[in-house]
Amino acid sequence: MNSETFCSKYDQLVAELKKITLFGSCGSVLGWDEQANMPPKGGEHRANQLSLLAGLGHQMATAPELGDLIGELEALQSFDDPKTPEAVVISEARREYDRATKLPQTLVEEMSKVTSLGQQAWVEARKNKDFSAFQPWLEKIVTLKREEAKAIGYEDDGQPYDALLDAYEPGAKTAEVDAVFTAFRGPLVELLQEIQNSSVKPDLSILERSYPVEQQKKFAIEAATAIGFDFEAGRLDIAAHPFCSGFGPGDCRLTTRYDEHHFPGAFFGTLHEAGHGIYEQGLDPEWYGTAIGESASLGIHESQSRMWENLVGRSKPFWQFFYSRAQEFFPTALGDVSLEDFHQAINGVQPSFIRVEADEVTYNLHIMLRFELEQLLISGELDAADVPEVWDEKFTASFGITPPDVSQGCLQDVHWGHGLIGYFPTYSLGNMYASQIFNQAEKELGDLSEMFAKGEFLPLKKWLNENIHKHGRRYKSNRLVEVVTGETLSHEPLLAHLRNRFGPLYNL
Amino acid sequence: MNSETFCSKYDQLVAELKKITLFGSCGSVLGWDEQANMPPKGGEHRANQLSLLAGLGHQMATAPELGDLIGELEALQSFDDPKTPEAVVISEARREYDRATKLPQTLVEEMSKVTSLGQQAWVEARKNKDFSAFQPWLEKIVTLKREEAKAIGYEDDGQPYDALLDAYEPGAKTAEVDAVFTAFRGPLVELLQEIQNSSVKPDLSILERSYPVEQQKKFAIEAATAIGFDFEAGRLDIAAHPFCSGFGPGDCRLTTRYDEHHFPGAFFGTLHEAGHGIYEQGLDPEWYGTAIGESASLGIHESQSRMWENLVGRSKPFWQFFYSRAQEFFPTALGDVSLEDFHQAINGVQPSFIRVEADEVTYNLHIMLRFELEQLLISGELDAADVPEVWDEKFTASFGITPPDVSQGCLQDVHWGHGLIGYFPTYSLGNMYASQIFNQAEKELGDLSEMFAKGEFLPLKKWLNENIHKHGRRYKSNRLVEVVTGETLSHEPLLAHLRNRFGPLYNL
Repeated sequence: MNSETFCSKYDQLVAELKKITLFGSCGSVLGWDEQANMPPKGGEHRANQLSLLAGLGHQMATAPELGDLIGELEALQSFDDPKTPEAVVISEARREYDRATKLPQTLVEEMSKVTSLGQQAWVEARKNKDFSAFQPWLEKIVTLKREEAKAIGYEDDGQPYDALLDAYEPGAKTAEVDAVFTAFRGPLVELLQEIQNSSVKPDLSILERSYPVEQQKKFAIEAATAIGFDFEAGRLDIAAHPFCSGFGPGDCRLTTRYDEHHFPGAFFGTLHEAGHGIYEQGLDPEWYGTAIGESASLGIHESQSRMWENLVGRSKPFWQFFYSRAQEFFPTALGDVSLEDFHQAINGVQPSFIRVEADEVTYNLHIMLRFELEQLLISGELDAADVPEVWDEKFTASFGITPPDVSQGCLQDVHWGHGLIGYFPTYSLGNMYASQIFNQAEKELGDLSEMFAKGEFLPLKKWLNENIHKHGRRYKSNRLVEVVTGETLSHEPLLAHLRNRFGPLYNL
Repeated sequence: MNSETFCSKYDQLVAELKKITLFGSCGSVLGWDEQANMPPKGGEHRANQLSLLAGLGHQMATAPELGDLIGELEALQSFDDPKTPEAVVISEARREYDRATKLPQTLVEEMSKVTSLGQQAWVEARKNKDFSAFQPWLEKIVTLKREEAKAIGYEDDGQPYDALLDAYEPGAKTAEVDAVFTAFRGPLVELLQEIQNSSVKPDLSILERSYPVEQQKKFAIEAATAIGFDFEAGRLDIAAHPFCSGFGPGDCRLTTRYDEHHFPGAFFGTLHEAGHGIYEQGLDPEWYGTAIGESASLGIHESQSRMWENLVGRSKPFWQFFYSRAQEFFPTALGDVSLEDFHQAINGVQPSFIRVEADEVTYNLHIMLRFELEQLLISGELDAADVPEVWDEKFTASFGITPPDVSQGCLQDVHWGHGLIGYFPTYSLGNMYASQIFNQAEKELGDLSEMFAKGEFLPLKKWLNENIHKHGRRYKSNRLVEVVTGETLSHEPLLAHLRNRFGPLYNL
């Protein structure tokens, strides 16, 4: 009798969770359209739409009946294994319900509206290199995020930033992230210095030749298809800031941006977003809307995108297979360039301003800077108005160069305008997880380089489907990596990968 | 005291109506995306999304609190003039509330899901010329529409089809439409016969030369801009079936389809949709979400699109201005074609299979056929399974030619798959209204031909803004036309226009 009651209530819960996720996915369509299609004058109406949806979605996610249902199921359940899918669905529903009920409806609606308009203000401000046009929005957003952190709360020995980080990387703590970043920073800066002192100077100018946009698009789609992104269940469009948005089963949208005179931007950007997309497409549609059918965290998401972009896409074997195609797509630009020179160029390491176009070595320094500034903004030690100055100061200290303007400095990323504070560290966590997961895949699958050189990318994709994607959010990210690889979070496999890749390239 | 209460309750009503419309507009974004962007495998998820939104929207539109609020305002109001904006807002809120509350929630959700999937089935069925793939959907849709008609109800001397027609053309009656169509049919067929007997045979092949798609797009956008569509507040995309979707203030989407070897399709299709778009963009954003800020009816909507497409876009003066541009865009196709031959070709009259590409004379015969079949489907006298046969039979009787396959016959239009039964007659009503309104504009503005020949289209656009658009849904459509032109609905101005245009062209 008890178990019958359980089943019927569990089905109710699943239906309710699916409805909440389905409803949220409607907002994703509007969010994607805002960045991919919306005409300039549509901004205010879109902000109103998204605010309404956010408010209604929050109402659903915080309905007292939902809380009651979760409570009843918790009382009825008797799982031997807390990682049984049903047990995970219930415990994650509890976690999300508790998080959502801590946020007042007014804050959610205000946040949605401010970030929709803030994102539009950011687009203009960045275009016009005018921080002052974005500053009032950043102020509002930081204030709202502080309110959010306060409402969510954090452990006694923690800090407000924990509450924000937790939204993207459930269970992660600022202090732990800080510790692993600190351990990583020294050897990373050392590697960068060795590279800068090397006499090897790749010819990066070959990447700035003319790469016709239409050809870039075709080539990027060909490569994304080869690694396993299904274009029958997705598309690739243009947006100011590249992103991936999984609407739900069968529909995942990638965006990128093209620059005729910068090949790597759109190409590796597309591989990156396709990596996210392959994860989304690899989630189990049967469990859609529940924790088992959702991605584990942004860090794990990023491990997938960065793996395809860098560990695969910038590897020599990848180009042993793809370089002749590249030469066919871009005969003028690449006809006289050897595979070796091309591979050296796409792996050129040098301090530069734009995070999304940074090489694998300096990339993590970009993240560390943002992580530091975000903590200062949330703790109140840094005012929005001072961000450009402090950014430039700290950037110069880290990279030895100073951004010429805010569009190449603190205005380059969409995140803050979108209210995504606490998100950046997941990029470096993803880099670390990527190396750990990739090493394990290679242990199990054999020589991946040999496969890539023959254009065989699907064995790795299928391994990821089976070993990462199918778990959904069954485990917290650090536990998932431990289950799959037997190792806890560490910067060392990433550091080893960087040394293995750049040592030979730069004769270190 | 009473009036203070009234004001506060009225503001509440307006806020609620705006919320309902805003919520509905989120579904419009998803609907547009489904046709303009969605990848093939996204269909089921999209249907789930739209069904959820339709259900929630219906809940909002039928909330008992809304009914109570309307009731209280009706009791409190004391307008001398029932056409005061506030009075109209309240009475239209009542009309819509009553209509919505008659529809059970389950029917609304079922309809949304079936029509979303039905529309996708239609795309495939049409592509494969396979009616059997669509037949089960048409059966379901007709059944649901009959249920809808029954739930909505109709006057004692009316018929079920009235209830469906009323959704698109509030207040219109099947018998009235039938009467005006019947009066029109005779002289229309007579005109067609005269044209077919004429020795003038325009060279239509010039329209089937090569018109590069990219150039077609640029030219269509240039023309749509010239007549007043604001592309800062809208866009033009590709869809299987052309349509216009106004999401709300500042965002209106047009779609069209291109055929390199058929110039008129995309060009006049875009002018047509831009006509709808100009109406949407002309609605008063202050009154968004209330009857004063919404379009009057589909018939009035169509009067705007058909006016720009035909009365303006196929007129000689329009091409006196635009033909040199056309020759610049398409030098190969039009370099050796005179303005006169081109103008004759775009006004070629001949029985053909596809409604949206039909000339102005035969167009209305296409509508009359659909109007007849829809009534038979809803009354139960015609089964979905028999539609292809009956379509071909009646088509042949009217046009003297038989569709070679269903894609050029009963599967050509998106409407039925979308559940839009009762919609077609509004096209011919729109044609009639267009001529009536255009004649009045010319009376007030002076010689429009002279203006068009100089590229001056904005005076007409502004006159429409002031005389049609700004009224929103203050009047029922036939009353609106009477207020603006002093005349009741009549086919005679349209017939006079057709005789004026085609008489000289065909030496009648």
